[in-house]
Amino acid sequence: MTDYTVEFKPHAKKVKVPQGTSLLEASHQAGITINNLCGGDGICGRCKMIIKKGEVQAEVSTKLTREEIQAGYVLACQTMVEGNIVAEIPPETFAREKTRADKDTERFQSFESHFYSTRFQPSPLVAKVYLELDQPEISNNTADHQRVCESVQRKLDLCATQMGLKIIKNLPEILREHNYKITATVGLRREVAEVIQIEGGDTAEESYMIIVDMGTTTVVAHLVDATSLRTIDAAACFNSQGIYGREVTGRMISAEKKGAEDLQKLLVGDINQLINQLAKANDVLLKDIIAVVCAGNTAMGHFLLGLPTYHIRRFPYVPASVEPPPLRAAEVGIEINPRGLLYSLPGISGWVGSDLTCGILATGMYDNPEISLLVDIGTNGEIIIGNNEWLVACSASAGPALEGASVECGMRAETGAIERVFIKDGEIRFAVIGETAQPKGLCGSGIIDLVAVLLTQKIINRSGVFINDNSDQVREIDGVPAYILVEAEESGTDDPVYMNEVDIENIINAKAAIYAAMQILVKRLDMNFNDIDHFYIAGAFGSYINIEHAITIGLLPDIPYDRIEFAGNTSIWGAKIAAMYEEAFFKVTEIRKNTTYYDLMGADDYIDEFQQAMFLPHTNIELFPVLKG
Amino acid sequence: MTDYTVEFKPHAKKVKVPQGTSLLEASHQAGITINNLCGGDGICGRCKMIIKKGEVQAEVSTKLTREEIQAGYVLACQTMVEGNIVAEIPPETFAREKTRADKDTERFQSFESHFYSTRFQPSPLVAKVYLELDQPEISNNTADHQRVCESVQRKLDLCATQMGLKIIKNLPEILREHNYKITATVGLRREVAEVIQIEGGDTAEESYMIIVDMGTTTVVAHLVDATSLRTIDAAACFNSQGIYGREVTGRMISAEKKGAEDLQKLLVGDINQLINQLAKANDVLLKDIIAVVCAGNTAMGHFLLGLPTYHIRRFPYVPASVEPPPLRAAEVGIEINPRGLLYSLPGISGWVGSDLTCGILATGMYDNPEISLLVDIGTNGEIIIGNNEWLVACSASAGPALEGASVECGMRAETGAIERVFIKDGEIRFAVIGETAQPKGLCGSGIIDLVAVLLTQKIINRSGVFINDNSDQVREIDGVPAYILVEAEESGTDDPVYMNEVDIENIINAKAAIYAAMQILVKRLDMNFNDIDHFYIAGAFGSYINIEHAITIGLLPDIPYDRIEFAGNTSIWGAKIAAMYEEAFFKVTEIRKNTTYYDLMGADDYIDEFQQAMFLPHTNIELFPVLKG
Repeated sequence: MTDYTVEFKPHAKKVKVPQGTSLLEASHQAGITINNLCGGDGICGRCKMIIKKGEVQAEVSTKLTREEIQAGYVLACQTMVEGNIVAEIPPETFAREKTRADKDTERFQSFESHFYSTRFQPSPLVAKVYLELDQPEISNNTADHQRVCESVQRKLDLCATQMGLKIIKNLPEILREHNYKITATVGLRREVAEVIQIEGGDTAEESYMIIVDMGTTTVVAHLVDATSLRTIDAAACFNSQGIYGREVTGRMISAEKKGAEDLQKLLVGDINQLINQLAKANDVLLKDIIAVVCAGNTAMGHFLLGLPTYHIRRFPYVPASVEPPPLRAAEVGIEINPRGLLYSLPGISGWVGSDLTCGILATGMYDNPEISLLVDIGTNGEIIIGNNEWLVACSASAGPALEGASVECGMRAETGAIERVFIKDGEIRFAVIGETAQPKGLCGSGIIDLVAVLLTQKIINRSGVFINDNSDQVREIDGVPAYILVEAEESGTDDPVYMNEVDIENIINAKAAIYAAMQILVKRLDMNFNDIDHFYIAGAFGSYINIEHAITIGLLPDIPYDRIEFAGNTSIWGAKIAAMYEEAFFKVTEIRKNTTYYDLMGADDYIDEFQQAMFLPHTNIELFPVLKG
Repeated sequence: MTDYTVEFKPHAKKVKVPQGTSLLEASHQAGITINNLCGGDGICGRCKMIIKKGEVQAEVSTKLTREEIQAGYVLACQTMVEGNIVAEIPPETFAREKTRADKDTERFQSFESHFYSTRFQPSPLVAKVYLELDQPEISNNTADHQRVCESVQRKLDLCATQMGLKIIKNLPEILREHNYKITATVGLRREVAEVIQIEGGDTAEESYMIIVDMGTTTVVAHLVDATSLRTIDAAACFNSQGIYGREVTGRMISAEKKGAEDLQKLLVGDINQLINQLAKANDVLLKDIIAVVCAGNTAMGHFLLGLPTYHIRRFPYVPASVEPPPLRAAEVGIEINPRGLLYSLPGISGWVGSDLTCGILATGMYDNPEISLLVDIGTNGEIIIGNNEWLVACSASAGPALEGASVECGMRAETGAIERVFIKDGEIRFAVIGETAQPKGLCGSGIIDLVAVLLTQKIINRSGVFINDNSDQVREIDGVPAYILVEAEESGTDDPVYMNEVDIENIINAKAAIYAAMQILVKRLDMNFNDIDHFYIAGAFGSYINIEHAITIGLLPDIPYDRIEFAGNTSIWGAKIAAMYEEAFFKVTEIRKNTTYYDLMGADDYIDEFQQAMFLPHTNIELFPVLKG
């Protein structure tokens, strides 16, 4: 096949690709990160480019206006290279700065209030310990290696420590150069502690950890001071793997075809970028970051380590590993201290990952005799029900609509995002993140609010179809009926912020998948929702959704509000607890072993329950007594 | 400095070296192994070469005859390159085939009688285990990694196992390809077991270990079947590090000047050669050798791993490590299964190594309430005294005379070596290893016998000086009085086999160093030799020396013969027990921790005791009542 050169402006970055390659793929190979939410399906319309020169084969898209088409605009994902190309990337197509701190940071800074801190002494998975050793003399001339290890063991109350040959080789010099005053960095390698580094003098203050939640859509990282256990800062970015699909299944298919290296590289690249950004912003040296602790779904865990995912998506859904060993972070390309450790926390099965075991840890439900339900609303919806005696888990594919992706005007919860929609004085009003910011789109909580408000205002019916033609705000956009929440002239993007019928269908799909999964699991346990004492909602937007609105659209069951608790990003929260308390770290393994996975695909009635939930709130309104009046 | 080319014939191997380099060093750089016992001191006269072309600066040596000098012979170690050289290496200068099996092999093949085998179940440090795993189904769909580890743990009664990322990556494929029937190779990494290899099908029968005794003068290796625990074969060679000195001190000095890499390479090269030879001779594949277990003095242990030895030979004699971690053997260049493990067993101090902890293990003295003394007669003499409650160790530099080196006609105990000298019908007679072989030289036991016989026959006096001018056999050789045991025409080398006054002086020095060390240690413990219930003699020739003769020359104290036991090469014997029984492996660490090192250099009376022992048998004949009559 012929290779052609693609030059991207304004960078003037060039790349050689075979005929038929998409411009999206080409830009990726050129190392340019552009907006793309749908994984190259031509749906999100965010990857616009302008062909300046050369021949392409482009699909016509409703995402482009006639003017745009005349000006040479194409969707990069729908445009194949057929000659040497010069393409310009307009500013709006570049991925937005991937840098805003997660709003949960504040919550995590007050993390000290969690019960672990009251029960246990802090015992970070990797810690620095300053040692002043006895100087050798003829009556005490044990070897340098044993002198250091025995001292570490005494100080940390360990019965054994491992040490690599390279460190042992340098011990004689470093000990004598620093007068036997050294700082040992000691990491827990599951069953045994390892001295991973020896520094001269006292550097114990300079020790940091990075905690990562590897979401399918969003990657979040927290920088933690390993001495004070304080969370210093947080950052988030879209998961760059999106180029291979919005959902993990698409990415697994790609890994099967092309190998897992590229997916690993993208994820590790995101993590490295977040680490770098956090380090720079907080004057922390990479060499002082001594551990990375990751949670996420099982596919993400496999991508991180380059493990094969082939059998995860095939009956009976067997992953390569649900409890990978702690590794040198450098082994997968994560750039912290070269001998720093990477902990990939244990998950339960191919479809219930360490984000959920961490959620179980963070909520404390494994320790409570009362019945809890934890639902993690992400691109996959995972549900755990149980108490201190038993735990059952299941997983349902929801799609990314509730995270603001696969919704026309969806966006992440950052400045300019509409996070609240409500009725005031009979009018539909909204609130934007960053008070003075102009509205640019809708984040997850705003999406749920808007659907609920459109329903209660009878602008849409229970099937999600527009019924009120009287509203000025309901108009067709690109041939699809839509409710315009913000007119183009008032928006921060010069485009209207709206929600159309396709968006609403995506949202109903997502909420129905999650509701049906909860329903099935409760039914299997011979319970109903009223038997649930604690209903925890986890997920990136978990802290902010309006309960009433979530019940209104049938995302949550109609149970007393006081049983519902927004638990936030329990994945990163639990990962952080595991990083800080050895007991909690081992507890995650115990949770993994003691949780039963229930396979929804084997449930005959799941499709039925799903279809019944495809209304707002549900086909059976009796399930939602609060809405009947 | 100018570089010159040296070409060695008959190989035609060429090497470029700086002006002033010795031919010995140059031959070493060219990868040619030649005879050399004295470490380049010009004493042994074994490194003869013939200068064919080019300019050298050569010391005159009494080791060369006038005819040889006229023919262009030089000693390679005493000859410096001063131009481009062509040198021929005569056949006798090439190192003899380094291949004869240690005579102890037989003993080790009946090793099963040792008490460990009656007390404990065999538990080799690295073992293969065949597993038939349950096939995954939806009700049992745990990850491949956990499925394998849990099965290994059940089978081997372990509570945890580690597994590296590379193995986890390949698990999904290998499991399904072999229908969940696999063989796991599991190695003990001190505190935790590691699955180091997964093979499809049942390969458990093919599993071997190599046990190595890294002597200063001789390296011995045994090939052991890790399933049956049977010793299959043994091989030995001279330690190639000899080029840097006969004793470890010279080698440490060289390591300080040039770095430890070369010494490591030489030792690892010897071990690899022995492994290859054993594997080839017994149809064993290198990939099926899954562990190497090494014992030796502490300097050897450091050379093996490339650890710095600088502080071992400086007060207060602190080694880098006395208990190095188990490593991948490949990490130091040992060529077995690429993931096979290297165990370098723990020693006590800089001057009492794992050869001694292994000796303590092999004799069982750590477990006996009666008092034992273990003396390991090698280039260093080490002594341990103790019982099941306490153990004290010391070390004395003896030199290699008793191993057959630094003695004119000394050689290793192989075919052609005179291993016995005795009186029959009033005549001095001898016995040779390999009944029909012609005598070529004297090995350790023959050396002790000959000195004793010369003394009792009053051919030498108690100072080791020839007194009987009547004997035909006493003649000057190269100006030094000598006793000719075999005339040139009856010898296998066409040179006479003899012992001269310098040899005797070296032997007296060696035996005095060992005797004085034993004396001091016994004295410090407020005991005398009669308080010793078990007197174990270890060392390469330990099984063969004549007790009466050893007492006669004052190497051993005059105690009842029935208390003396020849324990053979307890270093390799103990290492083998540690390799086969996990309990024994951890026992070595306990022995290391519980043995007190006594520093002879700090003993004011050591020099005095040494000088008193510089007679045959001793200045104070009262100490040897058996000899008085």
